[in-house]
Amino acid sequence: METVSTAKAHGGTQGVYRHASTATGTDMTFSVYVPDHAPGAKLPVVWYLSGLTCTHANVTDKGEYRRACAEHGLIFVAPDTSPRGDDVPDEDRWDFGKGAGFYVDATQAPWSAYYRMWSYVTGELPALIASAFPADMARQSIMGHSMGGHGALTTALRHPDRFRAVSAFAPIVAPTQVPWGGALDRYLGDDMAAKRRHDAVALIEDGARVKELLVDQGDADSFLAEQLRPELLAEACAAAGIDLTLRMRSGYDHSYHFISTFMADHLAWHAARLRA
Amino acid sequence: METVSTAKAHGGTQGVYRHASTATGTDMTFSVYVPDHAPGAKLPVVWYLSGLTCTHANVTDKGEYRRACAEHGLIFVAPDTSPRGDDVPDEDRWDFGKGAGFYVDATQAPWSAYYRMWSYVTGELPALIASAFPADMARQSIMGHSMGGHGALTTALRHPDRFRAVSAFAPIVAPTQVPWGGALDRYLGDDMAAKRRHDAVALIEDGARVKELLVDQGDADSFLAEQLRPELLAEACAAAGIDLTLRMRSGYDHSYHFISTFMADHLAWHAARLRA
Repeated sequence: METVSTAKAHGGTQGVYRHASTATGTDMTFSVYVPDHAPGAKLPVVWYLSGLTCTHANVTDKGEYRRACAEHGLIFVAPDTSPRGDDVPDEDRWDFGKGAGFYVDATQAPWSAYYRMWSYVTGELPALIASAFPADMARQSIMGHSMGGHGALTTALRHPDRFRAVSAFAPIVAPTQVPWGGALDRYLGDDMAAKRRHDAVALIEDGARVKELLVDQGDADSFLAEQLRPELLAEACAAAGIDLTLRMRSGYDHSYHFISTFMADHLAWHAARLRA
Repeated sequence: METVSTAKAHGGTQGVYRHASTATGTDMTFSVYVPDHAPGAKLPVVWYLSGLTCTHANVTDKGEYRRACAEHGLIFVAPDTSPRGDDVPDEDRWDFGKGAGFYVDATQAPWSAYYRMWSYVTGELPALIASAFPADMARQSIMGHSMGGHGALTTALRHPDRFRAVSAFAPIVAPTQVPWGGALDRYLGDDMAAKRRHDAVALIEDGARVKELLVDQGDADSFLAEQLRPELLAEACAAAGIDLTLRMRSGYDHSYHFISTFMADHLAWHAARLRA
């Protein structure tokens, strides 16, 4: 692992790191914020999965998470959203290919050679974080935005014992039912069972459970009605007995202005569930 | 004035605006954050002047000022650092020309045709802010970073009745004594009297006064010893009886990680001095 940059911020260290990923076969860049802490202490870890078009840098620049992480003593990890590099197949669109890995292991050529973000985010990168940072891997939680909200929800639903909390900002909750989810058709082909394992609403319908979910959603979000459809998550949670807190936020759009406004709320909610 | 974008953030509105500037003869872009407020209310205004290479966007993305501005009810204005456009003369360097206007009205060709940031920031833009936003222009304060700290200090020292507070992050305090100040030689020529009017330490030596100053400076700032030299400001303030609070911050560099860490402190300090 190579250190790209570090800077002191809010008493801790904001770093950006790069490593050769075996999951994707490419170099991968991610950011980690480690608050000030006692020597030898291990801190809980909050995973943040980003949305379409993003790298680690968007939330690192605009997420306004460091003050709250410093206050609560939380490590904050922000992976990239896809493999990168000249060899990685791509298309000239922003909702598929680079920047749009959808947190799946692609099975369809040519994507399957590199697009293995599920293995990367749920396996390889956690092992690296555990080895290279003062992380208490018994205390993890996960959050994300939009496509990253989809990633956070599906990851938590499929690892109910790993994460003590999960929340999302404007998540894609049912990719098999919305246009953006067409990416799953191309990464995963006709295998509907595989696609349902990458669809939070379908996972809940099929029996996956978490105790509770926190979701914030702006009502001025231009993707709300067609792509996000939080009512589908509300219906699935109601039927499954999952305690969903869904807060519709008047006047907020899909941007980091929305995320940064409610970031501290989410981190406080995570922190309460990550206490030793 | 044209609205480039607006988004709800921390309960208020973060906007980016563009207008045709008579001072610079170019289009100029700036950002304004207006907190939620009662209808008809007028709010105090904090000016933020940015450093070398920056536009309005750096602090708007990375400054982490909105939560504190919302809490204290402060309008936050972030101008650009130079004229922009294909017609504007420039050189292939980051510390002169575009992104490096140094908050002066250039007198030397070819710069004098466009580089009139002093008139822009102290005259034209305040008039626009007063007319287009719910701003109480009787309650203004100013802050800045690096070159923008220089701009904030010189602007406040030359307008002691306009600003109720002034603070800076890692400011250039004595451009006539440091390499970056070579820009003043090129914008203003051999006119040492003019250059001393754009040098905070020289202004204080020549009799300009403010009641108090707040400066934060990271001790891991790579520009500290050669370009910033806060000891020169400390000596000038001591000799002049200006109440300078100079806080050396262990481990912090020159970046927005440093600024964002202490932004809320500065805004609280400004807010205490901007109360009606």
